[in-house]
Amino acid sequence: MRRPTIVLFGDSITEESFGDGGWGASLANHFCRSADVLMRGYSGYNTRWALRVAEKVFGGFESPPPAAVTVFFGANDACLPDRSGAFQHVPVEEYRLNLLSLLQLIRSRWPTTILLLITPPPIDEDGRLRFPYADDRSGLPERTNAFAGTYRNACIDAAEELAVPVVDLWTKMQRFPGWEKNLLRDGLHLTAEGNRVVFEEVVERLREQGVSVDAMAVDLPLFSQMDVNDPLKSFSN
Amino acid sequence: MRRPTIVLFGDSITEESFGDGGWGASLANHFCRSADVLMRGYSGYNTRWALRVAEKVFGGFESPPPAAVTVFFGANDACLPDRSGAFQHVPVEEYRLNLLSLLQLIRSRWPTTILLLITPPPIDEDGRLRFPYADDRSGLPERTNAFAGTYRNACIDAAEELAVPVVDLWTKMQRFPGWEKNLLRDGLHLTAEGNRVVFEEVVERLREQGVSVDAMAVDLPLFSQMDVNDPLKSFSN
Repeated sequence: MRRPTIVLFGDSITEESFGDGGWGASLANHFCRSADVLMRGYSGYNTRWALRVAEKVFGGFESPPPAAVTVFFGANDACLPDRSGAFQHVPVEEYRLNLLSLLQLIRSRWPTTILLLITPPPIDEDGRLRFPYADDRSGLPERTNAFAGTYRNACIDAAEELAVPVVDLWTKMQRFPGWEKNLLRDGLHLTAEGNRVVFEEVVERLREQGVSVDAMAVDLPLFSQMDVNDPLKSFSN
Repeated sequence: MRRPTIVLFGDSITEESFGDGGWGASLANHFCRSADVLMRGYSGYNTRWALRVAEKVFGGFESPPPAAVTVFFGANDACLPDRSGAFQHVPVEEYRLNLLSLLQLIRSRWPTTILLLITPPPIDEDGRLRFPYADDRSGLPERTNAFAGTYRNACIDAAEELAVPVVDLWTKMQRFPGWEKNLLRDGLHLTAEGNRVVFEEVVERLREQGVSVDAMAVDLPLFSQMDVNDPLKSFSN
């Protein structure tokens, strides 16, 4: 059976989402008899680069259109412009416009596909100092939580402007006690517990938009619904 | 970019392979910028049922053909014919013939696709007694390791007959000290460590057949290869 697809478009937090306890793998497991979850995460990418490659990325999917696409960028755009991650930095207003362009591009291609924005996560600056990138000897974090928060705001604005549902990850995560270490592994990327938060938020938002296991067809008869006295009967249709 | 696909066809050990530490998720993570790993696991299914649905399962995939298909059945066929799992039991000679039919069906559909058989895992009978299915009050395990071993032999025979590579999981796992509890969660299904064994074996066998990250195109420029002074240059082709 051809199954509906759910496409995850984003940066390293999407690219590594099929690692142990990752939110992408958890989604694939959740939709295990209903949908294929396809990962299109590009480590290090910001929205400027994403916009440059979006036609290539989405050109690879044939009809029917995906059931849903998550768009999860901003962690790299929010690198500070005067620190080691400067070449990934995108000004916040351009970030907002890039998100609008990405969403409009997907929407014009697939008008019925459910879009879901995810804001960048919060930043634990202490974590970034403990786990700097190899070539960064500045002793200064290349991202701060306050600066990431301005990208969170721009992401929410973009979602509202186009009436696209959004996971406010930056806010949601900071409600968890000890979020800095419990949810973030290096001040930026997710622990298994952080992945769990993303997974649960994404499942819930998708469900609100009508994309859920309950609303999808099951691929082939479930074992639990077979007649133990005549299992082949299940396949006669 | 349209990516090559790797299709995992099997029973519950395939269906749950995107759970925490699962071998399917690990494969998806391993091939994260190269291939899509699509799970077609059907919990409880034996080869008799798989053969009934194979056309439907593989009919869902459009061209180009998958790069590889894993075929991982036998754990249910090897239910003892006189115990609680009897309705899943398939005689071992029929199991062998069913595997041959499945492989030939896939091969005739996609002559260039790499096929990989996986034998059923060993059975820890004590584990099966501790975790019986809800409706089994017989006090007897519905599977034994010796009986599963005859299905392992039939799987190896089928692989040799059609010159298809095979992961001899039944033998491989029993070489690990404490395999009964370390690799199996309930005497049958895999722990994270057991999943790791399957993942590593599958990656190695696929690599031997020319299906590897090194041999595949990378989807879009890698961050590590971008020019920090002119990152957009990477996208100009």
